[in-house]
Amino acid sequence: MGEAAKGKVGGLAGVVAGKSAICTVGTGHGLNYRGYDIYDLARECEFEEVAYLLLRDELPNKSQLAEFKQELKAARALPKELKEALKLLPKNAHPMDIMRTGCSVLGCLEQENLDVLKMQFPDQQKIAVRLLGIFPSILTFWHHYHHSGKEISTDSTQDSIGGYFLELLHQTPPKDLWVKAMHVSLILYAEHEFNASTFTSRVITATMSDVYSAITGAIGALRGPLHGGANEAAMDLIAEFKTPQEAIDGIHKKLSNKDKIMGFGHRVYVTADPRNVVIKEWSRKLSDDVKDTKGLYPISEAIEKVMWDEKKLFPNLDFYSASAYHFMGIPTSYFTPIFIFSRTAGWIAHVFEQRANNKLIRPSSEYIGPENREFVPMDKR
Amino acid sequence: MGEAAKGKVGGLAGVVAGKSAICTVGTGHGLNYRGYDIYDLARECEFEEVAYLLLRDELPNKSQLAEFKQELKAARALPKELKEALKLLPKNAHPMDIMRTGCSVLGCLEQENLDVLKMQFPDQQKIAVRLLGIFPSILTFWHHYHHSGKEISTDSTQDSIGGYFLELLHQTPPKDLWVKAMHVSLILYAEHEFNASTFTSRVITATMSDVYSAITGAIGALRGPLHGGANEAAMDLIAEFKTPQEAIDGIHKKLSNKDKIMGFGHRVYVTADPRNVVIKEWSRKLSDDVKDTKGLYPISEAIEKVMWDEKKLFPNLDFYSASAYHFMGIPTSYFTPIFIFSRTAGWIAHVFEQRANNKLIRPSSEYIGPENREFVPMDKR
Ligand SMILES: CC(C)(COP(=O)(O)OP(=O)(O)OC[C@H]1O[C@@H](n2cnc3c(N)ncnc32)[C@H](O)[C@@H]1OP(=O)(O)O)[C@@H](O)C(=O)NCCC(=O)NCCS
Ligand SMILES: CC(C)(COP(=O)(O)OP(=O)(O)OC[C@H]1O[C@@H](n2cnc3c(N)ncnc32)[C@H](O)[C@@H]1OP(=O)(O)O)[C@@H](O)C(=O)NCCC(=O)NCCS
Repeated sequence: MGEAAKGKVGGLAGVVAGKSAICTVGTGHGLNYRGYDIYDLARECEFEEVAYLLLRDELPNKSQLAEFKQELKAARALPKELKEALKLLPKNAHPMDIMRTGCSVLGCLEQENLDVLKMQFPDQQKIAVRLLGIFPSILTFWHHYHHSGKEISTDSTQDSIGGYFLELLHQTPPKDLWVKAMHVSLILYAEHEFNASTFTSRVITATMSDVYSAITGAIGALRGPLHGGANEAAMDLIAEFKTPQEAIDGIHKKLSNKDKIMGFGHRVYVTADPRNVVIKEWSRKLSDDVKDTKGLYPISEAIEKVMWDEKKLFPNLDFYSASAYHFMGIPTSYFTPIFIFSRTAGWIAHVFEQRANNKLIRPSSEYIGPENREFVPMDKR
Repeated sequence: MGEAAKGKVGGLAGVVAGKSAICTVGTGHGLNYRGYDIYDLARECEFEEVAYLLLRDELPNKSQLAEFKQELKAARALPKELKEALKLLPKNAHPMDIMRTGCSVLGCLEQENLDVLKMQFPDQQKIAVRLLGIFPSILTFWHHYHHSGKEISTDSTQDSIGGYFLELLHQTPPKDLWVKAMHVSLILYAEHEFNASTFTSRVITATMSDVYSAITGAIGALRGPLHGGANEAAMDLIAEFKTPQEAIDGIHKKLSNKDKIMGFGHRVYVTADPRNVVIKEWSRKLSDDVKDTKGLYPISEAIEKVMWDEKKLFPNLDFYSASAYHFMGIPTSYFTPIFIFSRTAGWIAHVFEQRANNKLIRPSSEYIGPENREFVPMDKR
């Protein structure tokens, strides 16, 4: 049996679907990436160090990190055909659909090679870097084209993925505090064992499909409000209320309606999401920094308290990520795409791991349908 | 425990991942779709009847079928933006990447609505028809544009999905025998319980994502050579040999090299794939019809015999599908896309079923990585 909050059945809760050396979630180790404590990583590292750790097994030294960042920078440029495709996709499309499509188009333009005899994928490390580098370009190019008709350049001196994204989005260099906040947020989002999107990428990979298919599928899974989409839903929720008291009353009402409160609960964690304390502190810091007058941070805290008092449910990473992103001027509908910028490192680490010891992932179902029905010819129906 | 060939471990073999009323595979019932024997369906039905059965639970009567076909015909047209996108995707792209991208683009243009309060998807039946109708248009439009520069029309009097595809591909109405062969082939491919691509679509759906995300992900899973991609790999294999004797020797050699022979074996079936006898007979019929001089059918039979004698491995549906498609003049790289035209019915039936009783699909892993490693600051690495 693997880990799941006690008593959960169905949805493969607690079912071990494979071995993995990448991440521990709720298995008595705390949350570790490749054995390193998430708190150390979030406090000490840049996101790029963590992505390197996930993709190449070890933390990089100074020169390895510099080289990796150089590769990531070189991977930002958008091919002409991809730009044209993004221009065709409408302004009112769901940004996650843009990301899913952008990844899929890139897979047509820069196909992954499979060495059939050896059943090996020689380009997989290069494509990992390409996707990490290009994803912020895809979102922001599409954004600016449809909001101002401008085809933005992907040139930037920012050397981090978070800083690059903020600069392209706002079309001005971000302040240091925001770059630091993005590092922390992307580190926290980077990896989380067999969550639904990562598991999707492993099921796809296990048929020996290409990495673009795996990541395209993972983006589709992340999009759902029960998974990555929860950070956007949490923002919409917080923004419904003008004061903490309104929030308290509103959440009570929603709970009595049996509504799901997005950004709360988890399949595996029982009393807290260990990532919450870190992102919550950053949400507070950013709130102070922008001198938020809407009180989003105290409103969030009020929601947190009601959820615990009433349901013993705790905020997951998505809840305070929402306000943190909001304070950096990021539109709500881009919160889940940011999750992609980061989780791509985890997804691809799992693609590599699945490939290194592959076995088709193909479960069974319990049949509950009708038994042998007699066929009825058309003229008797 | 669910069904898997005895002794298989890993890859969720034999693990029940959920309940389903759609299909039985190897559970002592034979292969049934919604309780109806696959042999009756393949002999008596048009593919559209089976798609209706999968999507709407019952076999249609005459007027329901006529209406359903009308809906499917109306769903064939390509939006302008999708045509432009297909024109951008290169001629040498993998056709499965084209299909994956086409589906994803359509999801941007004709987004699925989610009624958040009721957590319902009111357009799901309409989108099912849209995807079944449009997939052959996507493939053939892209094909002709890049092979002859021609933007083909999607107007056609063919009233079946298989006939429509053949007409668009060959740009001439198909003969009746071929239309019939397509019905049988698409019926056999339509549904197969929790296979890897269907399971992918359920994992994505379980996050409450949209149906385009689910199908885009499923296409990515189907692409792999261990799953749908096997029909193309089988064709390449068969085409390697000029005579049955060459095939016998060649397969012996491959087996001694421990090569996988594509189109053989199955996770669940132990001694035979029940679909094989049907598609094999059709491969023979089509071989006679085209008076095949390359002997592909006898070569296939020779491969089948060696595989059984040496490994007790049997052909799965993909093996004789390969030569059957080849005899209808279909390029090998379009075999797996045809699988999409059909399996979309099964995939979406599973999307509906998952939504009707949803639970996030999120397993666990067995952690085999390093234990609590001490963090090493950058200047000590
Ligand atoms: C994350 C989540 C999908 C885990 O789902 P799960 O492991 O299948 O657990 P369940 O949904 O069965 O939850 C167990 C119980 O807690 C309740 N619950 C869980 N999360 C809840 C929430 N956010 N709001 C209200 N009730 C919740 C469920 O309704 C269920 O109650 P019941 O036993 O009376 O039916 C679930 O907590 C959820 O939907 N959260 C909101 C979405 C979200 O924040 N997702 C991001 C996850 S990182
Ligand atoms: C379908 C398939 C993926 C099922 O995989 P699975 O349930 O994980 O079973 P395994 O791959 O572990 O196969 C069990 C044993 O049979 C062997 N085997 C299975 N299919 C084989 C094939 N097509 N050629 C050669 N050996 C094969 C395996 O090598 C394995 O041998 P081992 O125990 O000595 O290692 C597998 O049979 C396969 O790869 N077939 C070829 C691809 C194909 O036709 N796919 C379409 C499926 S409809």
